[in-house]
Amino acid sequence: MTLPSTMRGVRLPGSSTVEHVTVAVPEPGPGQVLLRMRASSICGSDIRAIYREHLGVGAEAYQGVVAGHEPCGEVVEAGPGARRLSPGDRVVVYHISGCGQCEECRRGYPVGCSSDHRAAHGWQRDGGHADYLLAEESSCLLLPEPLTFVDGALVSCGFGTAFEGLLRGRVSGRDTLLVTGLGPVGLAAAMLGRHLGAARVIGMDPVASRVELAQSLDLLDVAVADPADLAEALGSATGGRGCEVTIDCSGHPDARLAALRHTRHWGRCVLVGEGGTMTMDVSPLLIHPQVSVHGSWVSSVQHMAELLELLVRWGEHPGRIVTHRYPLSEAGTAYEVADRGQAGKVCIVWED
Amino acid sequence: MTLPSTMRGVRLPGSSTVEHVTVAVPEPGPGQVLLRMRASSICGSDIRAIYREHLGVGAEAYQGVVAGHEPCGEVVEAGPGARRLSPGDRVVVYHISGCGQCEECRRGYPVGCSSDHRAAHGWQRDGGHADYLLAEESSCLLLPEPLTFVDGALVSCGFGTAFEGLLRGRVSGRDTLLVTGLGPVGLAAAMLGRHLGAARVIGMDPVASRVELAQSLDLLDVAVADPADLAEALGSATGGRGCEVTIDCSGHPDARLAALRHTRHWGRCVLVGEGGTMTMDVSPLLIHPQVSVHGSWVSSVQHMAELLELLVRWGEHPGRIVTHRYPLSEAGTAYEVADRGQAGKVCIVWED
Amino acid sequence: MTLPSTMRGVRLPGSSTVEHVTVAVPEPGPGQVLLRMRASSICGSDIRAIYREHLGVGAEAYQGVVAGHEPCGEVVEAGPGARRLSPGDRVVVYHISGCGQCEECRRGYPVGCSSDHRAAHGWQRDGGHADYLLAEESSCLLLPEPLTFVDGALVSCGFGTAFEGLLRGRVSGRDTLLVTGLGPVGLAAAMLGRHLGAARVIGMDPVASRVELAQSLDLLDVAVADPADLAEALGSATGGRGCEVTIDCSGHPDARLAALRHTRHWGRCVLVGEGGTMTMDVSPLLIHPQVSVHGSWVSSVQHMAELLELLVRWGEHPGRIVTHRYPLSEAGTAYEVADRGQAGKVCIVWED
Amino acid sequence: MTLPSTMRGVRLPGSSTVEHVTVAVPEPGPGQVLLRMRASSICGSDIRAIYREHLGVGAEAYQGVVAGHEPCGEVVEAGPGARRLSPGDRVVVYHISGCGQCEECRRGYPVGCSSDHRAAHGWQRDGGHADYLLAEESSCLLLPEPLTFVDGALVSCGFGTAFEGLLRGRVSGRDTLLVTGLGPVGLAAAMLGRHLGAARVIGMDPVASRVELAQSLDLLDVAVADPADLAEALGSATGGRGCEVTIDCSGHPDARLAALRHTRHWGRCVLVGEGGTMTMDVSPLLIHPQVSVHGSWVSSVQHMAELLELLVRWGEHPGRIVTHRYPLSEAGTAYEVADRGQAGKVCIVWED
Repeated sequence: MTLPSTMRGVRLPGSSTVEHVTVAVPEPGPGQVLLRMRASSICGSDIRAIYREHLGVGAEAYQGVVAGHEPCGEVVEAGPGARRLSPGDRVVVYHISGCGQCEECRRGYPVGCSSDHRAAHGWQRDGGHADYLLAEESSCLLLPEPLTFVDGALVSCGFGTAFEGLLRGRVSGRDTLLVTGLGPVGLAAAMLGRHLGAARVIGMDPVASRVELAQSLDLLDVAVADPADLAEALGSATGGRGCEVTIDCSGHPDARLAALRHTRHWGRCVLVGEGGTMTMDVSPLLIHPQVSVHGSWVSSVQHMAELLELLVRWGEHPGRIVTHRYPLSEAGTAYEVADRGQAGKVCIVWED
Repeated sequence: MTLPSTMRGVRLPGSSTVEHVTVAVPEPGPGQVLLRMRASSICGSDIRAIYREHLGVGAEAYQGVVAGHEPCGEVVEAGPGARRLSPGDRVVVYHISGCGQCEECRRGYPVGCSSDHRAAHGWQRDGGHADYLLAEESSCLLLPEPLTFVDGALVSCGFGTAFEGLLRGRVSGRDTLLVTGLGPVGLAAAMLGRHLGAARVIGMDPVASRVELAQSLDLLDVAVADPADLAEALGSATGGRGCEVTIDCSGHPDARLAALRHTRHWGRCVLVGEGGTMTMDVSPLLIHPQVSVHGSWVSSVQHMAELLELLVRWGEHPGRIVTHRYPLSEAGTAYEVADRGQAGKVCIVWED
Repeated sequence: MTLPSTMRGVRLPGSSTVEHVTVAVPEPGPGQVLLRMRASSICGSDIRAIYREHLGVGAEAYQGVVAGHEPCGEVVEAGPGARRLSPGDRVVVYHISGCGQCEECRRGYPVGCSSDHRAAHGWQRDGGHADYLLAEESSCLLLPEPLTFVDGALVSCGFGTAFEGLLRGRVSGRDTLLVTGLGPVGLAAAMLGRHLGAARVIGMDPVASRVELAQSLDLLDVAVADPADLAEALGSATGGRGCEVTIDCSGHPDARLAALRHTRHWGRCVLVGEGGTMTMDVSPLLIHPQVSVHGSWVSSVQHMAELLELLVRWGEHPGRIVTHRYPLSEAGTAYEVADRGQAGKVCIVWED
Repeated sequence: MTLPSTMRGVRLPGSSTVEHVTVAVPEPGPGQVLLRMRASSICGSDIRAIYREHLGVGAEAYQGVVAGHEPCGEVVEAGPGARRLSPGDRVVVYHISGCGQCEECRRGYPVGCSSDHRAAHGWQRDGGHADYLLAEESSCLLLPEPLTFVDGALVSCGFGTAFEGLLRGRVSGRDTLLVTGLGPVGLAAAMLGRHLGAARVIGMDPVASRVELAQSLDLLDVAVADPADLAEALGSATGGRGCEVTIDCSGHPDARLAALRHTRHWGRCVLVGEGGTMTMDVSPLLIHPQVSVHGSWVSSVQHMAELLELLVRWGEHPGRIVTHRYPLSEAGTAYEVADRGQAGKVCIVWED
């Protein structure tokens, strides 16, 4: 296969606009692979911290690279010394590469890499909104057969984040699960929480269209659109005991507090939604009910690999939550739709 | 309600016979309740250690009492100082009462009570094969409404034991579960393992009728009757990786070894089936695959209470595995059937 | 031994005064024991919620009973049906009795008992500030020989609370421990944390006399009296990484935040100090550092029993933190000293 | 610094002999570093499976390489693309390199690497018994200052293995620890178990000289040389309750069984010593005492890094257990001494 020398790509200048560019197709060095992109979804953090305006600072700043940190594609070339991958392999890209040798990297969490080598695709190194992507072989996870490229793109950040949070909450069939915030990560948490065993999944989001989407996908046993209804809904669903596991995927202070308030005695409240603050009465909400609150950031590489294996076992497809698909040439529309916050997941797809 | 002064009861003289007797209806003392029996099932250990011959020694010896250690009934009288129960309450009886104050009792495991106060119903104190039963209030668990008395009897020992073993194995949707031995405890493990989240449940028993029963109850994804077929069945079901959790409910050395051998790297192998030995090559089966083996004995009182709550939440009925029901007057037939080892669970039931 | 019919006792009318009364010596009923009091210490919550003014409401209200919820004494009479205790036994009293049958009681935490039977000694049932105490046998823990009655009194609430919090934090030799708030519970946390293995213990309290006490007892590796110095002190003690486990025993919002802020990535922050609120930036303090916050309330009965066993094994004496001992007749002075918040532990002692 | 083109090295032909050879000094490729060796200790597995005769088969076979799988040295040259190391860095080498991308490697356990890239230094790739060593940068752990090269060599396999086993047993100050087998790994377990918090450490080895060594290093509270004395020694040390954690470092069936037999109810028995079988009565040793048995193999890279950090914090030096030091030219004597099984650790040291 002969590769072109240039390719299409998309950058995010920051004023809620999308810039189409033509850039060189990169060449893989030692330990790297070149991927032909097949799916590249949009994450809420892209909207919040890059698309509207560039909010990140220092190591988290957007550095003018090709956007897209949820990439999935096919290996077309492997650099020297590749250990496992070869052309034709379908792979999910863990969206951040690290030094591989610091405490967080050794633990499997390059997201927390403390070195200068840390670079997120789409933020500090070129991402998936281009025809080809240069990735570290160690960031790539084989995409098993029944899963689609769109499934894989969704796993690379959002579903990985939801899965890790649920693991932190140790969800099983012993638990009723409350999900606050039904954006893409919340939808993922509801879907995966069910597969982890939760017999009842309760979801809340003040945006009615999101609640409806969750219901239409059959992800919830109880759906709550008005936060004022939550106490009553949970009262009848849990006999007033609350939920063994709650997970906030919204990042909103009120939703976090609602999650904590409805965590059962001895339960776990997991915080995944980013930003802002949380204020709580410590004795009635934490000490007397013997509750634990867990912060959880993205996922480990090995948990992402485990998730791919489990999705096959469960017969599940993350792509179910994609409501809008666009070719790369319509990336502008894709970002507009994602920015409105009414949709499910929005994904750039190469259909050929 | 006026209680009779005498009642029917059943004792087990030991030579595979059943003795029908008439005994006094007991009166509840402080902290005790009198139950009208509604269901009282037969456990494998009753057959092995009492019915055929009296095997237990010392504290575990059968002391000529009314048989039956899986009792479920209705409170008809509460002794002085009762704290919670009153006539009309439906209760499951945790089958062993302890001192309440030793290390094991405080942990919630009266089965391990180290004092002289330890007494198992049907072994050292009168059990459920009589029209009335005297129980400690602290041994009684409220039976929630949709569950039947038969469901409750099954929980009081067998399902509790299976549930505890599965908790030791931390079963969730991340796990494939292998159950070796499909007697009543194995059937319970398969049923509860599914509800705890196991996406695939594989069961093995050399007795074809037991495998068929498990299949007819829709408890298994993969059923294996010939142990020689297990490796191949698991190879295709798990891609050769083995099962994250295995649980032996047979007590047979070969079945234990099969469970261990098919435990995945980093997995957990739980031993619940009693008796006999186990011999293993330590490096290939334990050290190199980083496997843990957990012994698990009966259950805690609080886990049994949790199980009752979960059964309601799951909409499940343990009674589904009962294949034979008899009135107390036909206890002899009930024990004969149970002794044959071909049936599901056998239960004495008061139908009135 | 002939018991007197009346005895001395102390009540707390609420306006920072102590009332000496003469009351009848109670008689133990079934499951109860009568103790001759030997040591009865004062807890911060007695000061905050009863001595100064009666703050508790509903089930937590002070009901005019004999004060003192940290009792330790000697059995002088056992009620009918006593299972384990007999006259002469030295016992610690878990300071709250519950129904024994609700979810929290079965778990071993009568502090969380959800029934009307819940009663804290010194709050809703007579406590240890009298010559005799009526207790449930199930609330009593045998005090092993080398431990003194004062040691036992301190375990019955404060040291139990500190121990439970440290268990929640899973403290071992892998951890550096930060304790914020060096009142009696904080001193206990520092002392027990060291025995659980913490190689370095860092303590902070803005009250200089408390820091000095902690140092004079050799409980700390690093002592911080000015909160502004904490960051620098921890920077040099932990290489800037923070502490694997932090525990707040102050209940003060700033101290809680300091504890959380100095929790190492993947570490655990335990909240034991009661009251007030906590406000935190969720992403930098919880999500990105993958931190867990655990509320922990008092202790389980079995953990308190374990603590007694461990104290013997460790050769430790909680009584080391007692700075003031008074006979019952000087209870007024004892409360005044405790109220000033400068002392270590204050304990009423029967020296005869 | 100009490197020589050839260097001295040692191979193990298999008939309890040592072969001195001269080989080329390797050049580091991408992601690799060249180390000047400073310390290289001998492990029991080298003796058992290579020195006496070549026992390994297939992927575990000795492939005629330079021996020594416990290497510690100083970086003298970094290959292209090195991310963290540079000349002068002191490093411990995790003794096995893997593909970095399989399930076990991602988990941090290259010892379990399932690919063809797996190679143990001294077995399938050149090891530390030479003046220079070629290692993967990702296998290298920075050796913090107060630790010596000998300390580092001991961590690279033996102390890492002991530490991992103790982590599997969750050792803290709550535990009494029994170590069976006081060879180098057992000595490490005793030393590290104490630092993890174990208040009492009991060691057993039928070789009197090993017990004496452990005692002279002040590693044990109770030392047992005759297995027949163990029950009595433990009876008095633990009040007959047994040890919360036991760890077998001998690989001997009797010692394993002794460890299991003396594990306290609810305790953990860790198996680290390789080879052979284990036979146990399941009900009395595993089920009734609710015991867990954990196989544990070597360690993860991140746990080894943690151990290095902790050793500094603890002020400990693994090198304390080294009883014999030799220059590379006396490797033959070193192996002879190690083979006799009476010594502590034997280490090749470059003293210049």
